[in-house]
Amino acid sequence: MKVLIIGGGGVVGQKLGAALGAQGHLRGQEISEITLADIVDPKPVAAGCPVTTHTVDIADRTSVDALITADHDVIYLLAAIVSGHAEQDFDTGMNINLFGTHNVLERVRALGHKPVVVFSSSIAVYGGEVPDPIIDHTFLNPQTSYGMQKAMGELLINDYSRKGFLDGRAFRLPTISVRPGAANRAASSFMSSIIREPLNGKEAICPVDENFPHYYLSPRKCVENLIKGAELHAEDLGMNRAMMMPGRMWTIGQMIDAMNSVAGPAPAKLIKWEADETVQRIVNGWRFDLRPEKSLKLGLSADDSFADNVRYYMDDDLGKS
Amino acid sequence: MKVLIIGGGGVVGQKLGAALGAQGHLRGQEISEITLADIVDPKPVAAGCPVTTHTVDIADRTSVDALITADHDVIYLLAAIVSGHAEQDFDTGMNINLFGTHNVLERVRALGHKPVVVFSSSIAVYGGEVPDPIIDHTFLNPQTSYGMQKAMGELLINDYSRKGFLDGRAFRLPTISVRPGAANRAASSFMSSIIREPLNGKEAICPVDENFPHYYLSPRKCVENLIKGAELHAEDLGMNRAMMMPGRMWTIGQMIDAMNSVAGPAPAKLIKWEADETVQRIVNGWRFDLRPEKSLKLGLSADDSFADNVRYYMDDDLGKS
Repeated sequence: MKVLIIGGGGVVGQKLGAALGAQGHLRGQEISEITLADIVDPKPVAAGCPVTTHTVDIADRTSVDALITADHDVIYLLAAIVSGHAEQDFDTGMNINLFGTHNVLERVRALGHKPVVVFSSSIAVYGGEVPDPIIDHTFLNPQTSYGMQKAMGELLINDYSRKGFLDGRAFRLPTISVRPGAANRAASSFMSSIIREPLNGKEAICPVDENFPHYYLSPRKCVENLIKGAELHAEDLGMNRAMMMPGRMWTIGQMIDAMNSVAGPAPAKLIKWEADETVQRIVNGWRFDLRPEKSLKLGLSADDSFADNVRYYMDDDLGKS
Repeated sequence: MKVLIIGGGGVVGQKLGAALGAQGHLRGQEISEITLADIVDPKPVAAGCPVTTHTVDIADRTSVDALITADHDVIYLLAAIVSGHAEQDFDTGMNINLFGTHNVLERVRALGHKPVVVFSSSIAVYGGEVPDPIIDHTFLNPQTSYGMQKAMGELLINDYSRKGFLDGRAFRLPTISVRPGAANRAASSFMSSIIREPLNGKEAICPVDENFPHYYLSPRKCVENLIKGAELHAEDLGMNRAMMMPGRMWTIGQMIDAMNSVAGPAPAKLIKWEADETVQRIVNGWRFDLRPEKSLKLGLSADDSFADNVRYYMDDDLGKS
């Protein structure tokens, strides 16, 4: 059982690689190799099996062909241009998020070995005038180019699976928080930095007010769900391989209260409140009242409380980057 | 006001060109030129303005660039590889229906003149386990590659419109019946031929039984709706430019009864009943209980009865091909 993680240099990719390395098995088989691939050579992770790293530009079919081989039994496709970046640079977003995804699926189709492909979609596929709550059968009406590209990726995953080219599953990730490391170009970047930076004794800027509601999942739970997502049996997925990954709705105020309860009142004093209309225009279009019935039924799960998210960050990441 | 119809050699494209030629105006302006483009040079239509014809392969960006110019104020994108063909030949379906659509939209974006673009989607975007009835906010879960490609085209139309690259609208066409001309590779081809061939004194094969329900629109009404679709104001379309085009549900038995009422009992005797599992596997996945609330509110409409569809065929097409 060889596992390939495309986007293996990112926060989720690194944690997924480490979790698989520690676990040592997947889909009932021992993992014999973990390959991490990304646009820049990823950091290797600790594992009981060999770990290899590769650079890949998924927008380039030749690069994809050099990466993926017929012995990759499970392929995670996590690589993406994030929301704020894809909104500013339409062509790069299309080249990576749409055509890059297509390149990966076409390479897999050409090899003919029908691996499990786990695709990270996003709750950014939701938006527009659809009524709340968001349920499994809600129309996808993304209001960002990133969301559009993820919705298109889901359609490809579904059709390539239906045609028997691969065994795909797509999960719409909630916003991941608390995300370790540096801020990125995702419009949601502040949803981690307002917790992460203060816990590191640094100032953070919050561009929305404390009543802003959003839908979150910790990196630790996300990785658990991605592993569970690969384990699911194709016959249990029905006619739609794309679904929400469970998360929970919290307001900024609730998140700060959770940080206070875990780490005391000092960190929250480092949050500066500076409204940012560009960020607000993007994130106010995102949906937060989500009911992930199908994925919950399939055994995926959310965090119990945002205090857990804070604790996971402190246990897993604080002081390590 | 110059109008370009890509797919102008097809049944709907020809009728749309003729209707625009007879009408002479669109969006409050006089039509100064109608251009019909297709993979083979289309037949010109009668019009009070100049009519030009072009060949174009939308899968080839150079060909698309040679066709579309900055004075095309309204562009209809009707060209497609039909359902049965796209299912048999995955690559050709992708090249025309997805990448061809992308080529057209990219050419328009590069020109920067923001024309109205009317895209013909299909009710084949519906399927899977979503509950009936199909409403405006129902998840698209196509069970054919054609439906997947049309759903992807809708997402592109929405995002290119949101970004201000063009003023798009997409309509999910019901199955068009009674369609004149020859049978094609659409899995729905029999849904016209069982009426058309008998009215021409020829035998026809029905691969499903008389209780098979489906959702239909006459070519005449479809053209009316496509013209209305171009006339709609962008501000009335809201955050989703893609919607059902109204149609009506009829069973095969109801359609034959309608033919009997209009043309007497003789034609129906020419229908041979021969179950075809390949066709049934595709069409049984299609949905028929559709509630096109948004497009009805915007002024689009369906046929009053299937007898109308039969009469329209006899008035508009019988004996003319």
